[in-house]
Amino acid sequence: MQSKKPADSEVTAYQMVMPSHLNGGWCLFGGQLMSWIDLAAGAAACRHSGGQILTAACEVRFLSPARTGDLLKLAAKLSFAGESSMEVLVRVSRGPDTVALARVTLVAVDNDGRPRPTPSLLPCTEGEKRDYAFAQRRYLKRKQAKS
Amino acid sequence: MQSKKPADSEVTAYQMVMPSHLNGGWCLFGGQLMSWIDLAAGAAACRHSGGQILTAACEVRFLSPARTGDLLKLAAKLSFAGESSMEVLVRVSRGPDTVALARVTLVAVDNDGRPRPTPSLLPCTEGEKRDYAFAQRRYLKRKQAKS
Amino acid sequence: MQSKKPADSEVTAYQMVMPSHLNGGWCLFGGQLMSWIDLAAGAAACRHSGGQILTAACEVRFLSPARTGDLLKLAAKLSFAGESSMEVLVRVSRGPDTVALARVTLVAVDNDGRPRPTPSLLPCTEGEKRDYAFAQRRYLKRKQAKS
Amino acid sequence: MQSKKPADSEVTAYQMVMPSHLNGGWCLFGGQLMSWIDLAAGAAACRHSGGQILTAACEVRFLSPARTGDLLKLAAKLSFAGESSMEVLVRVSRGPDTVALARVTLVAVDNDGRPRPTPSLLPCTEGEKRDYAFAQRRYLKRKQAKS
Amino acid sequence: MQSKKPADSEVTAYQMVMPSHLNGGWCLFGGQLMSWIDLAAGAAACRHSGGQILTAACEVRFLSPARTGDLLKLAAKLSFAGESSMEVLVRVSRGPDTVALARVTLVAVDNDGRPRPTPSLLPCTEGEKRDYAFAQRRYLKRKQAKS
Amino acid sequence: MQSKKPADSEVTAYQMVMPSHLNGGWCLFGGQLMSWIDLAAGAAACRHSGGQILTAACEVRFLSPARTGDLLKLAAKLSFAGESSMEVLVRVSRGPDTVALARVTLVAVDNDGRPRPTPSLLPCTEGEKRDYAFAQRRYLKRKQAKS
Repeated sequence: MQSKKPADSEVTAYQMVMPSHLNGGWCLFGGQLMSWIDLAAGAAACRHSGGQILTAACEVRFLSPARTGDLLKLAAKLSFAGESSMEVLVRVSRGPDTVALARVTLVAVDNDGRPRPTPSLLPCTEGEKRDYAFAQRRYLKRKQAKS
Repeated sequence: MQSKKPADSEVTAYQMVMPSHLNGGWCLFGGQLMSWIDLAAGAAACRHSGGQILTAACEVRFLSPARTGDLLKLAAKLSFAGESSMEVLVRVSRGPDTVALARVTLVAVDNDGRPRPTPSLLPCTEGEKRDYAFAQRRYLKRKQAKS
Repeated sequence: MQSKKPADSEVTAYQMVMPSHLNGGWCLFGGQLMSWIDLAAGAAACRHSGGQILTAACEVRFLSPARTGDLLKLAAKLSFAGESSMEVLVRVSRGPDTVALARVTLVAVDNDGRPRPTPSLLPCTEGEKRDYAFAQRRYLKRKQAKS
Repeated sequence: MQSKKPADSEVTAYQMVMPSHLNGGWCLFGGQLMSWIDLAAGAAACRHSGGQILTAACEVRFLSPARTGDLLKLAAKLSFAGESSMEVLVRVSRGPDTVALARVTLVAVDNDGRPRPTPSLLPCTEGEKRDYAFAQRRYLKRKQAKS
Repeated sequence: MQSKKPADSEVTAYQMVMPSHLNGGWCLFGGQLMSWIDLAAGAAACRHSGGQILTAACEVRFLSPARTGDLLKLAAKLSFAGESSMEVLVRVSRGPDTVALARVTLVAVDNDGRPRPTPSLLPCTEGEKRDYAFAQRRYLKRKQAKS
Repeated sequence: MQSKKPADSEVTAYQMVMPSHLNGGWCLFGGQLMSWIDLAAGAAACRHSGGQILTAACEVRFLSPARTGDLLKLAAKLSFAGESSMEVLVRVSRGPDTVALARVTLVAVDNDGRPRPTPSLLPCTEGEKRDYAFAQRRYLKRKQAKS
C-alpha cells in the first residue's frame, strides 16, 4: 500500500450554530460539538484509509463557548497512521478564535468490524513532522501497555 | 458551602440504541455516545453544584461497539471538585460489558458564564478516595500549567 | 421464571431541557416529554423482562410546564406484570415539583414480535402493594373486555 | 366569541416512517408516534382557539406496529371545548388499518401561559354529537374532582 | 391502470415552527422547510402511484420568513403525471400569507429502485388544467433534452 | 466594499450518510440532502458577505441515490453577487460520481432582516466567468420581473 500525505485526506467542514444545537445555558452543547468533531475526524480517516472506520478514543478541550449564528470551521488532519489505527487532530475555530481542539483515534475496519491495514502517513511540513513524532510516541506507549 | 459526597450527585441514565443513533457502519455513532456521556456528566455536575455548568474537556475510550436494541447504562459520578471545576467519571455498560469509559471536566458558571464556587467533594469509599487522588493530581498539574 | 421486585428493574433517568426540546411557546414540547417517558418506561420493562418490548398504551398528565435549563428526573418503576404485559409508572420531577405523571403499558415480545412470558412482580413496600392492586384491577378489566 | 364546528379546525397530517423513527426492535418508536400525535392535536387546537395552546393530558393506545416505508395518516378533530380546555381525538391509520388511537386534552393560553377563553364547539354529525357527550362527561368529572 | 384526479392524492400537512427548526438568525431554517416540502410532496406522489417514490428535482422559492410559534400549512397536489414521473406543487402558507412555493418532481420506483408505471392524471378544475399544461411542457422539454 | 473572488468564500463539507438520514426506501432522504445543501450554500454566502444571510430560492436535481456509509462531498462556490443577493452553486459528489447539483439564491440581511450590501464577485477562471454570465442573466431577468 502506498503511503499518503496528511494533505491528501485533510477535511474542512463548516457548521452554523443554530438554536437546536444549544444546551440549557444557550451556548453550543458540548455533545453536539463532539458529534461534529467525530464526523470530521471520521471523514478524514475514511479518506486516508479508503473504507470504513471506527472511533477508538477522543480527547476534546473546549476553549471558548460558541453561540447561535456562529459559523464554525472544523479542520481535521491526520497526524499519524499505524498498522490499522489513525490519529486525527481537529481544530474548531470561529474567525481567528480557537473554539476547541481535539485528538481522535480511529481504526480502519473491514465489513466484519475487524482491523484492516491502512496506508502509512508521510508528514511533509515542519508542523506535520512534529505532530507525527508526538503521536507516534503515544501510539507506541498504547501498544506497549497492551502487550 | 457544605461539602458533598460523590453519591449525593451520582447519576444513572439508560439509553436504548435505536437506528437513528447508528453510523454508516450500522454501529452506535461515537458522536452520539459522546453526547449521552456529556449529558450524564452535566447532570451529575449540575446536581453537585446546584446550577449551570459548562463542559471544559472530555476524554473518551470506546471499548466495545454497541448495536441496535442494546440497552446502555451510563453511570456518572464526581471524582473531584476544585474551586469551580469538577471532574466526572462516566462508565457506559451493556450488562456486564464496558462499552466506553469517559472523564469529563466541567466548570460551574453563573448566568453571565463566569466561574462560580462549588461545594468541595468528600470521597468516602476506597475507590472514591483513589479516584479523587488521581483527579487532584491532574487538577494541580493543569493549574500549574496555566500560571 | 423467578418473580422479581419492582426495585430490581427501577430506572432513573435525567434529562436537561435544551432549546431543541421546546415547542412554539418556548416551553418543553409535550411530544418530547412523552418520548423521554416512553424511553424510561421501556428501559424498566426491558430490564424486568430481559428482552425486547413494545409499548401498548400510554397515559400522561402534564402538571407543570418545564423550561430551558431545567434538569428533569424521570423515575420509572413497574407496578404490575401479567403473563406478557407490564405496567410502568413514571414520575417526572424538577426538584420537589412534579412535572408529569404517566402510566405506560408494555408487552414483552420475541424476535418475531409475538408476546413472550415475563417474570411475575413481587410488590414489597406499602406503596408498591397499593399500586399493584390498582394496576391488577385495570389489567383484569382489559382482559375481560377482550374476551 | 362565536362557536365553531369540529370540521372548521380538523387537521389531517401524513408522516412517512423512516429509519430514524424506529426503536431498537426496528418498529416505529412509540415516543415518535406520540410526538406526531401531539403535533396534530396541537395544530387542531391552535386552529380552533386561534392562538397558543399547552398539552394537559394524553392517552394513546397502540393497535398495530408500523414499519419503515409506511405512510401514516393522522386525523385530528375536536370532540369538546370547555371554557379554555379542548379535547382532540386523533386516529392514526395506514390504509384501512388503525395504527393508534389517542385522546389529547389541551388548554388555550395567552402569552403569559394563563388560560384564555376558547370558542365553544358545535357538534354536527351523529358521531360528533356522541363524542361530544362522552367528552363532556369526562370534562365535568375532572372539574368536580378539582373543586 | 386507471387515471386519477389531483384531488384523489392531495395532501395537507400542518407543521408548528419550534426553536429546533430555526437557523442562526432565529428564522425558520430553509433546509428544514425543504424537508417538510419533500415529505408532503412525497406523500402525495406515494398516494397517487400507490408505492415507493424517489425525489428527482425540487425548486423552492421562499417568500416570507417564518418564526417560532407559526402554524404552517403545506398543501401538496399533483400537477402532472408522465409514464413514471410526477410533478407536485406545494404551497406553504401561514394564515393568508404564502411562505414558500415549490415544484417537486418525483419518480415512482419498484423495490429495486427502477422506474415503474404510474396512473395518468386527469385535471378537473380550470386551475388544475392550466398547471397540467405548463407541467407537461416542462416534462416534454426534459424528455427531449435526454434523447 | 472590496470585491472578492469565488475561491475566497468557497466551502467544502463532508457528510457521512447514516441510517438516521434515510427515507422509507432506505436511500438518502431528499429533504436531508437539501438541508445539507442549504447549510453549505449558507456558509459560503456567510463568508462572502461577512454576516447573516437568508435563503431566497433553491433548485436541486438529484442524479444518483446515496446509501448508508457513503461519504458525500459538498462543494459550494459563489457564481454571482448582486447588490445584496448571491447565487451559490453546490455540487454533491461521492468519489467521481455526481449525486446532486444545486443552485441556491441567498440574500445578505442585517439584524432586522433587511437586505444589506455585499461585496461584488470577481470571477477568475474560465468556468467561473461562464457561471457568472449565466447567473447574471437570471439575476437581471428576476429584477425585471419585479419592476
